Amino acid sequence: MDVIELCNWRYATKKMIPGLVVPDEQVERILEAARLAPSSSGLQPYEVLVISDAALRARIQAVAKNQAQIADCSHLLVFAAWDTYTPERIRQAFEQTRRDRGELSEYWANYGKVLEEQYPVRGAEVNFQHTARQAYLALGFALLAAAAEGVDCTPMEGFDADALDDLLGLRARGLRSVVLLPLGYRDEENDLLLKLNKSRRPMAEFASELK
Amino acid sequence: MDVIELCNWRYATKKMIPGLVVPDEQVERILEAARLAPSSSGLQPYEVLVISDAALRARIQAVAKNQAQIADCSHLLVFAAWDTYTPERIRQAFEQTRRDRGELSEYWANYGKVLEEQYPVRGAEVNFQHTARQAYLALGFALLAAAAEGVDCTPMEGFDADALDDLLGLRARGLRSVVLLPLGYRDEENDLLLKLNKSRRPMAEFASELK
Repeated sequence: MDVIELCNWRYATKKMIPGLVVPDEQVERILEAARLAPSSSGLQPYEVLVISDAALRARIQAVAKNQAQIADCSHLLVFAAWDTYTPERIRQAFEQTRRDRGELSEYWANYGKVLEEQYPVRGAEVNFQHTARQAYLALGFALLAAAAEGVDCTPMEGFDADALDDLLGLRARGLRSVVLLPLGYRDEENDLLLKLNKSRRPMAEFASELK
Repeated sequence: MDVIELCNWRYATKKMIPGLVVPDEQVERILEAARLAPSSSGLQPYEVLVISDAALRARIQAVAKNQAQIADCSHLLVFAAWDTYTPERIRQAFEQTRRDRGELSEYWANYGKVLEEQYPVRGAEVNFQHTARQAYLALGFALLAAAAEGVDCTPMEGFDADALDDLLGLRARGLRSVVLLPLGYRDEENDLLLKLNKSRRPMAEFASELK
Protein backbone atom coordinates (compact mmCIF):
# COMPACT_ATOMS: atom_id res chain seq x y z
CA MET A 1 0.00 0.00 0.00
CA ASP A 2 1.22 3.39 -0.98
CA VAL A 3 -0.46 6.68 -0.06
CA ILE A 4 -0.40 7.92 -3.67
CA GLU A 5 -2.05 4.68 -4.77
CA LEU A 6 -4.72 5.17 -2.10
CA CYS A 7 -5.25 8.73 -3.35
CA ASN A 8 -5.76 7.44 -6.87
CA TRP A 9 -7.93 4.49 -5.83
CA ARG A 10 -10.35 6.62 -3.87
CA TYR A 11 -12.87 8.88 -5.57
CA ALA A 12 -16.08 10.66 -4.61
CA THR A 13 -18.31 7.62 -4.89
CA LYS A 14 -21.60 8.62 -6.43
CA LYS A 15 -23.28 5.20 -6.62
CA MET A 16 -22.92 2.64 -3.86
CA ILE A 17 -24.26 -0.90 -3.77
CA PRO A 18 -27.23 -0.81 -1.39
CA GLY A 19 -27.26 -3.37 1.38
CA LEU A 20 -23.54 -4.12 1.34
CA VAL A 21 -22.40 -3.58 4.91
CA VAL A 22 -18.92 -2.35 5.90
CA PRO A 23 -17.70 -4.65 8.71
CA ASP A 24 -17.55 -3.05 12.15
CA GLU A 25 -13.79 -3.62 12.48
CA GLN A 26 -13.20 -1.57 9.35
CA VAL A 27 -15.51 1.23 10.49
CA GLU A 28 -13.58 1.22 13.76
CA ARG A 29 -10.23 1.56 12.00
CA ILE A 30 -11.54 4.48 9.96
CA LEU A 31 -12.76 6.16 13.15
CA GLU A 32 -9.46 5.36 14.84
CA ALA A 33 -7.54 7.20 12.11
CA ALA A 34 -9.81 10.23 12.58
CA ARG A 35 -9.33 10.01 16.35
CA LEU A 36 -5.55 9.91 15.96
CA ALA A 37 -5.45 12.92 13.62
CA PRO A 38 -3.61 15.90 15.07
CA SER A 39 -5.50 19.04 15.99
CA SER A 40 -4.63 22.54 17.07
CA SER A 41 -3.19 22.41 20.61
CA GLY A 42 -4.41 18.82 20.74
CA LEU A 43 -7.93 19.92 21.62
CA GLN A 44 -9.69 17.57 19.15
CA PRO A 45 -12.58 20.03 18.87
CA TYR A 46 -14.92 17.66 17.05
CA GLU A 47 -16.79 14.40 17.33
CA VAL A 48 -17.95 11.83 14.83
CA LEU A 49 -21.53 10.56 14.93
CA VAL A 50 -22.02 7.16 13.34
CA ILE A 51 -25.40 6.34 11.86
CA SER A 52 -26.15 2.89 10.54
CA ASP A 53 -29.88 2.98 11.28
CA ALA A 54 -31.64 3.10 7.90
CA ALA A 55 -34.66 5.04 9.14
CA LEU A 56 -32.51 7.80 10.56
CA ARG A 57 -30.41 7.90 7.39
CA ALA A 58 -33.61 8.33 5.39
CA ARG A 59 -34.49 11.36 7.48
CA ILE A 60 -31.00 12.76 6.97
CA GLN A 61 -31.24 12.14 3.24
CA ALA A 62 -34.29 14.40 3.20
CA VAL A 63 -32.20 17.36 4.41
CA ALA A 64 -29.24 16.44 2.20
CA LYS A 65 -30.58 17.02 -1.30
CA ASN A 66 -31.81 13.45 -1.37
CA GLN A 67 -28.31 12.18 -2.17
CA ALA A 68 -28.48 8.44 -2.79
CA GLN A 69 -25.26 7.52 -0.98
CA ILE A 70 -26.88 8.40 2.35
CA ALA A 71 -29.44 5.66 1.77
CA ASP A 72 -27.09 3.21 0.01
CA CYS A 73 -24.15 3.38 2.43
CA SER A 74 -24.07 1.15 5.48
CA HIS A 75 -22.65 3.75 7.86
CA LEU A 76 -22.98 7.49 7.65
CA LEU A 77 -20.32 9.44 9.54
CA VAL A 78 -21.27 12.95 10.59
CA PHE A 79 -18.26 15.10 11.43
CA ALA A 80 -19.47 17.63 13.99
CA ALA A 81 -17.25 20.43 15.27
CA TRP A 82 -17.50 22.17 18.61
CA ASP A 83 -19.70 25.24 18.31
CA THR A 84 -17.11 27.18 20.30
CA TYR A 85 -14.24 26.80 22.76
CA THR A 86 -15.18 27.03 26.42
CA PRO A 87 -12.81 27.04 29.41
CA GLU A 88 -14.41 23.76 30.50
CA ARG A 89 -13.73 22.04 27.18
CA ILE A 90 -10.14 23.24 27.13
CA ARG A 91 -9.65 22.10 30.73
CA GLN A 92 -11.04 18.67 29.89
CA ALA A 93 -8.68 18.30 26.94
CA PHE A 94 -5.67 19.18 29.08
CA GLU A 95 -6.99 16.85 31.79
CA GLN A 96 -7.00 14.07 29.17
CA THR A 97 -3.37 14.85 28.37
CA ARG A 98 -2.53 14.67 32.05
CA ARG A 99 -4.15 11.23 32.25
CA ASP A 100 -2.31 10.03 29.14
CA ARG A 101 1.09 11.38 30.18
CA GLY A 102 1.05 11.09 33.94
CA GLU A 103 1.68 14.77 34.42
CA LEU A 104 1.74 18.01 32.50
CA SER A 105 4.93 20.00 32.08
CA GLU A 106 4.73 23.44 33.63
CA TYR A 107 4.94 24.88 30.13
CA TRP A 108 1.96 22.87 28.93
CA ALA A 109 -0.15 23.54 32.02
CA ASN A 110 0.45 27.27 31.58
CA TYR A 111 -0.32 27.01 27.91
CA GLY A 112 -3.69 25.49 28.76
CA LYS A 113 -4.49 28.42 31.02
CA VAL A 114 -3.58 30.85 28.25
CA LEU A 115 -5.98 29.07 25.88
CA GLU A 116 -8.73 29.14 28.52
CA GLU A 117 -8.30 32.90 28.70
CA GLN A 118 -7.80 33.66 25.04
CA TYR A 119 -9.99 31.27 23.06
CA PRO A 120 -13.51 31.61 24.51
CA VAL A 121 -13.48 35.41 24.24
CA ARG A 122 -12.76 35.30 20.52
CA GLY A 123 -16.45 34.51 20.07
CA ALA A 124 -18.34 31.47 18.85
CA GLU A 125 -18.12 32.21 15.15
CA VAL A 126 -14.33 32.62 15.07
CA ASN A 127 -13.97 29.55 17.23
CA PHE A 128 -16.31 27.43 15.11
CA GLN A 129 -14.39 28.30 11.95
CA HIS A 130 -11.28 27.10 13.75
CA THR A 131 -12.85 23.87 15.03
CA ALA A 132 -14.33 23.12 11.61
CA ARG A 133 -10.88 23.30 9.99
CA GLN A 134 -9.57 20.79 12.48
CA ALA A 135 -12.48 18.48 11.66
CA TYR A 136 -11.52 18.63 7.99
CA LEU A 137 -8.00 17.51 8.81
CA ALA A 138 -9.48 14.52 10.65
CA LEU A 139 -11.73 13.93 7.64
CA GLY A 140 -8.59 13.67 5.51
CA PHE A 141 -7.28 10.95 7.80
CA ALA A 142 -10.62 9.12 7.62
CA LEU A 143 -10.64 9.26 3.82
CA LEU A 144 -7.21 7.66 3.49
CA ALA A 145 -8.00 5.10 6.19
CA ALA A 146 -11.17 4.14 4.32
CA ALA A 147 -9.18 3.72 1.11
CA ALA A 148 -6.66 1.52 2.92
CA GLU A 149 -9.57 -0.68 4.01
CA GLY A 150 -10.96 -0.87 0.49
CA VAL A 151 -14.01 1.02 1.70
CA ASP A 152 -15.60 3.65 -0.51
CA CYS A 153 -16.89 6.97 0.67
CA THR A 154 -17.54 10.49 -0.46
CA PRO A 155 -17.28 13.68 1.59
CA MET A 156 -20.49 15.67 1.36
CA GLU A 157 -21.16 19.30 2.15
CA GLY A 158 -24.48 19.40 0.33
CA PHE A 159 -26.87 19.33 3.26
CA ASP A 160 -28.83 21.75 5.39
CA ALA A 161 -26.56 21.97 8.43
CA ASP A 162 -29.13 23.70 10.64
CA ALA A 163 -31.80 21.11 9.82
CA LEU A 164 -29.35 18.26 10.43
CA ASP A 165 -28.22 19.77 13.73
CA ASP A 166 -31.88 19.94 14.77
CA LEU A 167 -32.59 16.40 13.65
CA LEU A 168 -29.63 14.95 15.53
CA GLY A 169 -29.87 17.26 18.56
CA LEU A 170 -26.33 18.47 17.95
CA ARG A 171 -26.67 22.07 19.11
CA ALA A 172 -27.78 20.94 22.55
CA ARG A 173 -24.49 19.05 22.74
CA GLY A 174 -22.51 22.11 21.64
CA LEU A 175 -21.82 20.63 18.20
CA ARG A 176 -22.41 21.71 14.61
CA SER A 177 -22.35 19.34 11.67
CA VAL A 178 -19.69 20.25 9.12
CA VAL A 179 -19.35 17.36 6.69
CA LEU A 180 -20.91 13.94 6.01
CA LEU A 181 -19.05 10.80 5.02
CA PRO A 182 -21.11 7.81 3.87
CA LEU A 183 -19.18 4.51 3.93
CA GLY A 184 -20.02 1.71 1.54
CA TYR A 185 -18.94 0.06 -1.66
CA ARG A 186 -18.79 1.49 -5.16
CA ASP A 187 -21.20 0.18 -7.75
CA GLU A 188 -18.57 -0.30 -10.44
CA GLU A 189 -21.05 -0.87 -13.23
CA ASN A 190 -23.33 2.03 -12.53
CA ASP A 191 -21.15 4.78 -11.11
CA LEU A 192 -20.57 7.06 -14.07
CA LEU A 193 -17.92 9.07 -12.22
CA LEU A 194 -15.73 5.98 -11.90
CA LYS A 195 -15.34 5.88 -15.67
CA LEU A 196 -14.03 9.45 -15.83
CA ASN A 197 -10.44 10.54 -15.25
CA LYS A 198 -9.58 12.10 -11.92
CA SER A 199 -9.28 15.82 -12.50
CA ARG A 200 -6.70 17.92 -10.68
CA ARG A 201 -4.66 21.02 -11.46
CA PRO A 202 -1.18 20.14 -12.75
CA MET A 203 1.54 20.16 -10.09
CA ALA A 204 3.16 23.25 -11.63
CA GLU A 205 -0.02 25.22 -10.88
CA PHE A 206 -0.60 23.61 -7.49
CA ALA A 207 2.78 23.93 -5.80
CA SER A 208 5.61 26.36 -6.40
CA GLU A 209 9.00 27.02 -4.89
CA LEU A 210 9.48 30.45 -3.32
CA LYS A 211 12.91 32.04 -2.90
CA MET B 1 2.32 0.02 5.98
CA ASP B 2 -0.93 0.56 7.76
CA VAL B 3 -2.70 3.91 8.16
CA ILE B 4 -3.14 3.42 11.92
CA GLU B 5 0.57 2.67 12.23
CA LEU B 6 1.33 5.85 10.30
CA CYS B 7 -0.99 7.78 12.63
CA ASN B 8 0.90 6.43 15.61
CA TRP B 9 4.35 6.91 14.10
CA ARG B 10 3.80 10.55 13.28
CA TYR B 11 3.73 13.24 15.95
CA ALA B 12 4.07 16.99 16.10
CA THR B 13 7.85 17.07 15.80
CA LYS B 14 9.24 19.76 18.06
CA LYS B 15 12.95 19.21 17.47
CA MET B 16 14.34 18.41 14.04
CA ILE B 17 17.92 17.62 13.08
CA PRO B 18 19.23 20.75 11.34
CA GLY B 19 20.83 20.26 7.96
CA LEU B 20 19.25 16.89 7.20
CA VAL B 21 17.57 17.35 3.83
CA VAL B 22 14.41 15.56 2.73
CA PRO B 23 15.06 14.22 -0.80
CA ASP B 24 13.17 15.99 -3.57
CA GLU B 25 11.35 12.80 -4.65
CA GLN B 26 9.87 12.49 -1.18
CA VAL B 27 8.83 16.13 -1.04
CA GLU B 28 7.19 15.58 -4.42
CA ARG B 29 5.21 12.58 -3.20
CA ILE B 30 4.00 14.54 -0.18
CA LEU B 31 2.90 17.36 -2.48
CA GLU B 32 1.32 14.84 -4.83
CA ALA B 33 -0.85 13.47 -2.01
CA ALA B 34 -1.98 17.01 -1.18
CA ARG B 35 -2.68 17.65 -4.85
CA LEU B 36 -4.77 14.48 -5.12
CA ALA B 37 -6.85 15.29 -2.02
CA PRO B 38 -10.52 15.84 -2.77
CA SER B 39 -12.04 19.28 -2.37
CA SER B 40 -15.50 20.77 -2.47
CA SER B 41 -16.80 20.63 -6.05
CA GLY B 42 -13.25 19.72 -7.09
CA LEU B 43 -12.20 23.37 -7.02
CA GLN B 44 -8.91 22.79 -5.13
CA PRO B 45 -9.11 26.29 -3.68
CA TYR B 46 -5.57 26.35 -2.32
CA GLU B 47 -1.92 26.18 -3.29
CA VAL B 48 1.18 24.98 -1.55
CA LEU B 49 4.28 27.17 -1.45
CA VAL B 50 7.54 25.29 -0.92
CA ILE B 51 10.40 27.09 0.76
CA SER B 52 13.79 25.46 1.07
CA ASP B 53 15.79 28.68 0.98
CA ALA B 54 17.25 29.12 4.48
CA ALA B 55 17.31 32.91 4.38
CA LEU B 56 13.63 33.09 3.54
CA ARG B 57 12.81 30.52 6.22
CA ALA B 58 14.67 32.69 8.73
CA ARG B 59 12.45 35.63 7.81
CA ILE B 60 9.37 33.44 8.18
CA GLN B 61 10.59 32.19 11.55
CA ALA B 62 10.60 35.80 12.75
CA VAL B 63 6.84 36.07 12.18
CA ALA B 64 6.16 32.55 13.51
CA LYS B 65 7.06 32.87 17.18
CA ASN B 66 10.62 31.94 16.37
CA GLN B 67 9.70 28.25 16.19
CA ALA B 68 12.86 26.22 15.66
CA GLN B 69 11.40 23.73 13.16
CA ILE B 70 11.14 26.48 10.56
CA ALA B 71 14.92 26.87 10.67
CA ASP B 72 15.74 23.19 11.23
CA CYS B 73 13.48 21.68 8.55
CA SER B 74 14.73 21.34 4.99
CA HIS B 75 11.45 22.32 3.31
CA LEU B 76 8.72 24.50 4.68
CA LEU B 77 5.30 24.00 3.09
CA VAL B 78 2.91 26.93 3.31
CA PHE B 79 -0.69 25.92 2.70
CA ALA B 80 -2.38 29.00 1.26
CA ALA B 81 -6.10 29.11 0.56
CA TRP B 82 -7.86 31.24 -2.03
CA ASP B 83 -8.95 34.53 -0.46
CA THR B 84 -12.33 34.11 -2.16
CA TYR B 85 -14.11 32.37 -5.03
CA THR B 86 -14.31 34.35 -8.26
CA PRO B 87 -16.20 33.38 -11.43
CA GLU B 88 -12.83 33.24 -13.20
CA ARG B 89 -11.34 30.78 -10.68
CA ILE B 90 -14.39 28.56 -10.85
CA ARG B 91 -14.35 28.65 -14.66
CA GLN B 92 -10.68 27.70 -14.70
CA ALA B 93 -11.32 24.74 -12.41
CA PHE B 94 -14.12 23.46 -14.63
CA GLU B 95 -11.91 24.08 -17.66
CA GLN B 96 -9.29 21.84 -16.04
CA THR B 97 -11.91 19.13 -15.63
CA ARG B 98 -12.86 19.48 -19.27
CA ARG B 99 -9.21 19.02 -20.26
CA ASP B 100 -8.85 15.97 -17.98
CA ARG B 101 -12.08 14.30 -19.08
CA GLY B 102 -12.41 15.32 -22.71
CA GLU B 103 -15.78 16.92 -22.11
CA LEU B 104 -18.10 18.01 -19.34
CA SER B 105 -21.48 16.40 -18.84
CA GLU B 106 -24.33 18.83 -19.24
CA TYR B 107 -25.04 18.37 -15.53
CA TRP B 108 -21.51 19.31 -14.55
CA ALA B 109 -21.28 22.27 -16.94
CA ASN B 110 -24.53 23.63 -15.49
CA TYR B 111 -23.28 22.99 -11.97
CA GLY B 112 -20.23 25.13 -12.73
CA LYS B 113 -22.45 27.99 -13.82
CA VAL B 114 -24.48 27.71 -10.62
CA LEU B 115 -21.28 27.95 -8.56
CA GLU B 116 -20.13 30.96 -10.59
CA GLU B 117 -23.40 32.67 -9.70
CA GLN B 118 -23.70 31.56 -6.09
CA TYR B 119 -20.19 31.44 -4.60
CA PRO B 120 -18.64 34.86 -5.33
CA VAL B 121 -21.63 36.77 -3.93
CA ARG B 122 -21.36 35.01 -0.56
CA GLY B 123 -18.50 37.38 0.19
CA ALA B 124 -14.78 36.93 0.70
CA GLU B 125 -14.91 36.02 4.38
CA VAL B 126 -17.46 33.20 3.99
CA ASN B 127 -15.57 31.94 0.97
CA PHE B 128 -12.19 32.04 2.68
CA GLN B 129 -13.51 30.02 5.62
CA HIS B 130 -14.67 27.46 3.07
CA THR B 131 -11.40 27.39 1.13
CA ALA B 132 -9.39 27.13 4.35
CA ARG B 133 -11.31 23.99 5.38
CA GLN B 134 -10.47 22.38 2.09
CA ALA B 135 -6.80 23.22 2.61
CA TYR B 136 -6.91 21.42 5.96
CA LEU B 137 -8.23 18.29 4.29
CA ALA B 138 -5.27 18.44 1.88
CA LEU B 139 -3.01 19.00 4.89
CA GLY B 140 -4.32 15.73 6.32
CA PHE B 141 -3.29 13.94 3.14
CA ALA B 142 0.16 15.56 3.27
CA LEU B 143 0.65 14.50 6.89
CA LEU B 144 -0.03 10.84 6.18
CA ALA B 145 2.03 10.92 2.99
CA ALA B 146 4.95 12.37 4.96
CA ALA B 147 4.61 9.60 7.54
CA ALA B 148 4.57 6.99 4.76
CA GLU B 149 7.87 8.45 3.53
CA GLY B 150 9.37 8.39 7.01
CA VAL B 151 9.50 12.17 6.92
CA ASP B 152 8.69 14.15 10.05
CA CYS B 153 6.65 17.29 10.15
CA THR B 154 4.41 19.33 12.38
CA PRO B 155 1.41 21.42 11.38
CA MET B 156 1.76 24.98 12.71
CA GLU B 157 -0.86 27.65 13.17
CA GLY B 158 1.31 29.78 15.42
CA PHE B 159 2.31 32.53 13.02
CA ASP B 160 1.21 36.02 12.05
CA ALA B 161 -0.75 35.26 8.90
CA ASP B 162 -0.97 38.87 7.75
CA ALA B 163 2.77 39.35 8.16
CA LEU B 164 3.49 36.10 6.33
CA ASP B 165 1.11 37.01 3.52
CA ASP B 166 2.98 40.31 3.15
CA LEU B 167 6.38 38.65 3.25
CA LEU B 168 5.48 36.10 0.58
CA GLY B 169 3.33 38.42 -1.53
CA LEU B 170 0.36 36.07 -1.15
CA ARG B 171 -2.47 38.61 -1.08
CA ALA B 172 -1.44 39.94 -4.50
CA ARG B 173 -1.92 36.38 -5.75
CA GLY B 174 -5.35 36.09 -4.10
CA LEU B 175 -4.03 33.73 -1.44
CA ARG B 176 -3.99 33.69 2.37
CA SER B 177 -1.67 31.49 4.41
CA VAL B 178 -3.56 29.09 6.68
CA VAL B 179 -1.09 26.56 8.02
CA LEU B 180 2.64 25.77 7.85
CA LEU B 181 4.20 22.34 7.55
CA PRO B 182 7.97 22.05 8.05
CA LEU B 183 9.43 18.80 6.69
CA GLY B 184 12.52 17.24 8.21
CA TYR B 185 13.70 14.54 10.57
CA ARG B 186 13.03 14.13 14.26
CA ASP B 187 15.90 14.56 16.68
CA GLU B 188 15.14 11.41 18.66
CA GLU B 189 17.48 12.23 21.50
CA ASN B 190 16.42 15.78 22.07
CA ASP B 191 12.74 15.94 21.22
CA LEU B 192 11.05 15.78 24.61
CA LEU B 193 7.61 15.31 23.06
CA LEU B 194 8.72 12.04 21.48
CA LYS B 195 9.15 10.53 24.94
CA LEU B 196 5.58 11.35 25.97
CA ASN B 197 2.52 9.25 25.18
CA LYS B 198 0.25 10.40 22.39
CA SER B 199 -2.80 11.96 24.01
CA ARG B 200 -6.27 11.56 22.53
CA ARG B 201 -9.81 11.36 23.86
CA PRO B 202 -10.96 7.75 24.26
CA MET B 203 -12.99 6.40 21.35
CA ALA B 204 -16.14 6.30 23.49
CA GLU B 205 -15.96 10.09 23.87
CA PHE B 206 -14.88 10.71 20.30
CA ALA B 207 -17.37 8.72 18.26
CA SER B 208 -20.88 7.60 19.12
CA GLU B 209 -23.64 5.71 17.37
CA LEU B 210 -26.89 7.63 16.86
CA LYS B 211 -30.23 5.87 16.41
